[in-house]
Formats: sequence, C-alpha cells, structure tokens
Amino acid sequence: MATTEAVLNSIDANRDAAVGRLFDLLRIKSVSTDPAFAAECRRAADWLAGELRGLGFAAEVRTTPGHPIVVGHAKAKRKDAPHVLFYGHYDVQPPDPLELWTSEPFAPRLAEGEQGKEIVARGASDDKGQLMTFLEACRAFKENGGLPCNITFLFEGEEETGSPSLPEFLAANKDELAADLALVCDTGMWNAATPAITVMLRGLVLEEAIVHGPSRDLHSGLFGGPVVNPIHVLAKIIADLHDADGRIAIPGFYDGVAELPEDVADQWRALDFDEAAFLAAVGLTEATGEAGRSVMEKVWSRPSCDVNGVVGGYTGTGSKTVLPAKAGAKFSFRLVGKQDPEAIVEAFRAFVRERLPRDVTVEFISHGASGAMQLPFGSEPLNRARRALHAEWDKEAALIGCGGSIPIVGAFKRDLGMDALMVGFALADDCIHSPNEKYALTSFHKGARSWARILAALAG
Amino acid sequence: MATTEAVLNSIDANRDAAVGRLFDLLRIKSVSTDPAFAAECRRAADWLAGELRGLGFAAEVRTTPGHPIVVGHAKAKRKDAPHVLFYGHYDVQPPDPLELWTSEPFAPRLAEGEQGKEIVARGASDDKGQLMTFLEACRAFKENGGLPCNITFLFEGEEETGSPSLPEFLAANKDELAADLALVCDTGMWNAATPAITVMLRGLVLEEAIVHGPSRDLHSGLFGGPVVNPIHVLAKIIADLHDADGRIAIPGFYDGVAELPEDVADQWRALDFDEAAFLAAVGLTEATGEAGRSVMEKVWSRPSCDVNGVVGGYTGTGSKTVLPAKAGAKFSFRLVGKQDPEAIVEAFRAFVRERLPRDVTVEFISHGASGAMQLPFGSEPLNRARRALHAEWDKEAALIGCGGSIPIVGAFKRDLGMDALMVGFALADDCIHSPNEKYALTSFHKGARSWARILAALAG
Repeated sequence: MATTEAVLNSIDANRDAAVGRLFDLLRIKSVSTDPAFAAECRRAADWLAGELRGLGFAAEVRTTPGHPIVVGHAKAKRKDAPHVLFYGHYDVQPPDPLELWTSEPFAPRLAEGEQGKEIVARGASDDKGQLMTFLEACRAFKENGGLPCNITFLFEGEEETGSPSLPEFLAANKDELAADLALVCDTGMWNAATPAITVMLRGLVLEEAIVHGPSRDLHSGLFGGPVVNPIHVLAKIIADLHDADGRIAIPGFYDGVAELPEDVADQWRALDFDEAAFLAAVGLTEATGEAGRSVMEKVWSRPSCDVNGVVGGYTGTGSKTVLPAKAGAKFSFRLVGKQDPEAIVEAFRAFVRERLPRDVTVEFISHGASGAMQLPFGSEPLNRARRALHAEWDKEAALIGCGGSIPIVGAFKRDLGMDALMVGFALADDCIHSPNEKYALTSFHKGARSWARILAALAG
Repeated sequence: MATTEAVLNSIDANRDAAVGRLFDLLRIKSVSTDPAFAAECRRAADWLAGELRGLGFAAEVRTTPGHPIVVGHAKAKRKDAPHVLFYGHYDVQPPDPLELWTSEPFAPRLAEGEQGKEIVARGASDDKGQLMTFLEACRAFKENGGLPCNITFLFEGEEETGSPSLPEFLAANKDELAADLALVCDTGMWNAATPAITVMLRGLVLEEAIVHGPSRDLHSGLFGGPVVNPIHVLAKIIADLHDADGRIAIPGFYDGVAELPEDVADQWRALDFDEAAFLAAVGLTEATGEAGRSVMEKVWSRPSCDVNGVVGGYTGTGSKTVLPAKAGAKFSFRLVGKQDPEAIVEAFRAFVRERLPRDVTVEFISHGASGAMQLPFGSEPLNRARRALHAEWDKEAALIGCGGSIPIVGAFKRDLGMDALMVGFALADDCIHSPNEKYALTSFHKGARSWARILAALAG
C-alpha cells in the first residue's frame, strides 16, 4: 500500500491545481440541449482529450450525429492488471432561469456552504466535477509510477438529451470499448458522511395502448348506453393493474423478483430513511403501493407500474357530449432483479387483450424495454470497492438502489456485456439541473482519493 | 268537424303558396353561429314577425344579448279555449362544406327524391320547414273562422348555438309566455309512413372531476411505487361506475326510474328497430350496457353514464416518465323518468369521494344538471294528439324517446311549468346539419294538416 499512500499524498498536494483544472472545464458552456452551444460542446470534448493526452494517454475526439464522444486509452504498469472503462459526460443542463443564480453559471467560484467550501457553477456536480475526480486520481497514479488498471475513458456530450448517439457508438466500437467492468461517476453519496455504491437500477418497460371502440366519435345522448365507451374499457384495464394489496396483477409479473439479502435489508433499515419527509416533500402523508414494504424498498428493489399519461374524448374547457372512438394510455413498468422486459411486454399485452369486450381492439406502441441493473451482491469488484470507500470515509458504504434508470448502464450490460460500478460523490442538495449548482470541495477532493483507493483495490 | 275539414281543404288549396312562403324564409341566410350573419338573423326574425302580423296576430321582435326572439300572440275564437305555446327556431347551421351541395344552400328548390318531391335548402327541415307547418295550419284556421286555441308563438334564433339567451328570456317573461302546453316542432317521424310523438327526452347531468395527488408532477422512476398516482385513482372510479351487468353502481342512481307501460313496450317491439344496423353503422356488432334491455330502451328509456373525456399526465408523442399531480375526467349522466338531477350530482360526488385514498383530493366542476322530460303516458293532450295524427296518417303514432336532451323542453318545464308535446315531420335522411338538407313536400304539407288536426283536437 506504500504506492497508494503516495498517490493519496499527491492528490492532497495538488488539491488547488485540481480545482483550477476543474474551473477551466466549468468555464466551457457545453449545454447540449441548445444547438447554439454546439461549438462549446466541441471545446469541452477537445479540452478533455487534451487532458488525457497531457497525462500521456491516447485520446481522440470522435464525431457522432450529435455532439462528439471522447475515447481514451491508458495502460496499467502491470501486464495482468484488470481493465476498466470509465464513463462520464461533459455536457450540462441549460443554466436557466439565470436570474436565480447568485453568480454567473459559467464563472466558477468557491463559496462557503453548509459542508464547508463549495464549487459553484453549472456542471460542478453534474457531471464535470464528478468526472474530474477520476481524472485527478489517474493523474496522481501517473505521477507515482503508473496506473494500477488498464483504463478506457468514455466521455459523452449528450447525456442531458438522452444519449441519442451513444448506443450506435457502443455497437460500432464494441471491441475497442470492451473491458472487465464499467466505472460510472454520476450518482451520489447517501449523505455527506456516508459514501454509497449504487448497486441496483430499475429497468423500464414503456408501453402505449390505444383502445378503439366505435368507428367514429358519437353523440353520447343518441348512443350512450348500448355503445361501448373506450374510456371505460381503458379505465377498467388500468384499475385492474393493481390488486387490493398494491401488487401488480399481471400474471407472471413477479417472476425474477427476489428478496433482498438479509445484510442489505439490515443496512437499509439502518440508513434511517425518513419516509415521512420523503412523502411530505411531495405533499403526501401516506405511502401507497405494495403492502408491508418500506418506501425505500418500493423505490429501489421492488417493481412498479405507473400510467404516465391518459387521454380520450373531449379534454378542453367545459363539456362536450361525445362518446369517443378511442382512448389511450402510456404505461411504464419499473423492473428489478431478473424480470425479463420482453416477457413483461407480452404479459402486459395479453392482460390488456383479455379485458377487451367484443368489437373493441387495441393498438400497442412500444417505447422501449430494458431490464434492471443489479451488481451481484458479494461479487469481488463490489467487495473491493466497499473496502476502498470504507478506508477513505471511515464508514461503511451504503449499497443503495435507484428507482430510475440510467440508460448507459443498461447499454454497457447489453452491448458490452459489462456490469457497472456506480460510485459518485454528489450530495442531495447539489442543485443539479437547478440554479446555483454546487459540488462540495470535500466531494471533489475525497472523491479523487476514493477513486485512487478503488483503482488500487480493483487491481488487488 | 265541419270546420276542420274546411281548414284541411284550405291547406290543400294553398299548397303552392305555402311552399313559396317557406322559400322566402329559406332564402334568408340566418346562420346563428357566425357573427357575419347577424343581420340575416335579424331579417329572419323580422320576416316571421311580419308573417304573424299579416295573419292579424300581435307580434314583436325582441332583442337579446344574442340574436332576437320573436314573440307573438293570437286569440282563439272561443273564450274557454286552451292556450298553447308554439316553439320553433329560425336560425340554421352553417352550410359548409359548400362544395358538397348540388345547388346553392340558400336558393331553395324542389327536387325529385326518394319520397317524391323534396324541398332542398339549408334549414328546409331544421327548423324553418317544420316551423312553417304550424304557421300554415294557423293561416288556414284564420281563413276559416278563427283559431281553436289561444296561441303564443316563440321563435328563437340561437338554437344551433345552444340557446344561450333563452333561459333568461323565459325567466324575464314568465307571465307573458305562460300557457297550458308547449308545442315543439323540431323532431322527426318514425319513418315516412309513421308519425311520431316524442314523449321522453333523457335529462343530462354533466360533472367534471379532477383528482389531485402529489403536489407536483414527479419522476415515475424516483417516486413510482410508494406514491399515489391520480390516474390510477381516477381509473378505479371510472371502472367502478358500472357493475358486471352494465348497471350504474352509484347507490340510489335508479331512484325514479320506472318500467315502460306494457302497451308502450309492445309498441316499441312492434316498431322493429334494427339493432344490428344501428350498431353496424358505428362499426360494432354487439350492444353493451344493461343486460336484458333492448337498444331502443337503452337509448330512450334507460339512464346511462359515459365518460366524455379523460386526461392526465403526458399525452404527446412518445413517452415521458411522469407520475402526474392530477388527472381529470368529464362525466355525463343521461337521466330518465323522475330521476332527480341534484340527487344524482350528490350521489356521484359521494361515490367519487368514497374512492379517494388518503392524501388524494377531488375538485368538482358542474357543467349543468337537468331532469328528463316525460310526457305522462295516458295524459289527455297526448291522447288527443295521437288521435289527430292517426286520422291524418292512417297509422298509429309511435310514442318514441330521444336519447339526447332538448334543453328548451327542460326550460319550459322548469321555468314555465309546462309539459311539451313534441311532434315533427323530419325524416332520418333529411341531412340536417349536412350538405343537401331537404324536407319532403309530404312532410311539409301533411305536417301542416297534422297541426290543424292537433289544434282542433286539443280544443276538444
């Protein structure tokens, strides 16, 4: 561990210079959603490629139909070292509304905040600051004899717009991007004192169903009673989706859903999640959903089903006595464990078809289907990362879930066959996507130290 | 009956002149929906008032916030004669799409059609032709010794826009408009050989319910599972509205709903309504709704409930993983018999409230509530009208219902305490509201004769 100590000392010694480098990146207005900033996105990509080359790594800016992708490669000092792929994104959300910022969003500064010094700028936390924690760890290794792992770098510029160019890029560069494990730094800590590893992301099936009844919109006075109303049919389908215990009633839906290991369940209970505060923040006092499950379980480790939209008939002001020809709804299913997205699609569609009265037809539109990500509990990379984080933070890392999906992680699994280790140092109050985004200097500095420890641990 | 014979002969003798008078009215472009035609509406009102005065009746064109209303008064020759109020409307639908007309919509002409000669023009059937059947009957009485009834005439010019000025006008002129019975000529025959009296119109309750859950739209990945989804709550409410037998499940909903008298039920069965054709015309093969009821019953004499519109969450193209803060639906209830609209509103709202989980609230918006119209079976005016129509058409009049509402009829009952006798001579293929609107010359001529017989019969 002598080398790791030297690396950590190097990170400590270069702390101010590291902040300076991050500031340089933060000054680039790489807003991906607005075409007016395309040149700035390109500048950010060039800057990152330059940083990698400055460390002696191979690096290229690759064009895509959208913003460019940076790919870099660095060799470990040992031949038999493991190979990781590090992912981050250089694009940021638009800074609007500008008037709510206390300083210029692209003029980074240090400010005094609740957790001490904070870096304030658009992208400070999401994801430029996080991305740079890893680069600073790599720099410290280079200055102390070399990297412990072979590393492929992958920085995209379209994360904030849904990564439209990435899937094709991964497919086209499968061999070049192949690695043993993906490292992703775009998530958060449990709290300012407790590091976290996101070990589960829910999968997502998106299905739209449009129910067709009579051949045209009808007058509900002249036809109401004997004529089937597609809104009623659709409502019954939606109502049937959950049983009285809040479970999803589609046959076979829970196939592949496992219970948490006892130690993880214990850890989650120990995290003392404030359910009342979670609900109060959105105006509620009582959780719904599966009976006998905690809110944390429901969001992280249990599947769910929500109708995201419904429309049929007349939706303007006032009334219109129409019996509509059709009604539609958009359904989303969040998947966990080994639930099979394709099987869920089929089971859902069968469930809908079984509920159609005679003369009623349904049209389905798929908007995507991807499985859950689950880093196997007890796997070796996970154990090593846990020990590394424990050593840095003097506290056991929380193994947390995320109710949402991070599509890139699904793509790594699907297209490159890699699990992803998601470690990040963002805090809940970082105001990502909001005015006055910040990143605690502690997150930045101890984040770099954490990656140094993790890289060393992964190399064994 | 010597007098009535003379009156009928007079109608026969003046047939061509009557058509000429109707043509004069049809040439006036009294389109009420388009402000560009306001002067034409005024012209139609003036023309009608002139006709009434030409018959020696008192008549005035009264201004309203919208198009004017014509009010006329005529005395019977006998002091103890009954007093009826005749209602019609001089406004017409816009003639668009013009390119589908085979002749100018406001240049009336006689054409040869399936039932012989037909008057082709916008408004020929709805409602200028129908209205003039009554005026021609009155003219014939005037030419043969006087009217058998006291008559108040009420012609409005906003029927095609929902009669916005009429309720206030009725309320403000209650005493002047009071009569024993309203006569309305804006409905149809059963078929070209069978006259009809519309004895029941369904009432209408229009309620909008907006269900509120979380305080703002949420990410369905980060909140889906423990957080209540207003679309699901609303869907359950809609699904619960009907039971497995197609009956409406709101407690007390059927209070005031009576079975048809046996003779009316027999008559309806004898009408040989073609259910398959009714359904096929709207792309269906099977009727839904209350088990064990005919389509005719379901539309005419049974209450119904339809959701006319529903909206919540994301309704654009593609998907959005939103768990919405609210969802809303527009409900309509068609009422029959003595169902109390206010009681239905209360029962519906209670039904909804009972189905709200904790934290979920509902906002109701009323868009109107009016009861059904039911001319009492076996009442004296109805019996007399039946005999009069039988004499003219040599066929028993069908006592039919109408699934829709005619708001003016509800207003007569509510504001003036009058039942309405609805007799009209329109045919199903008259193309009202469509290009090439027509009115059979037989409808026009025998319609006038029918009113002559009805007026004579009502006077006893």
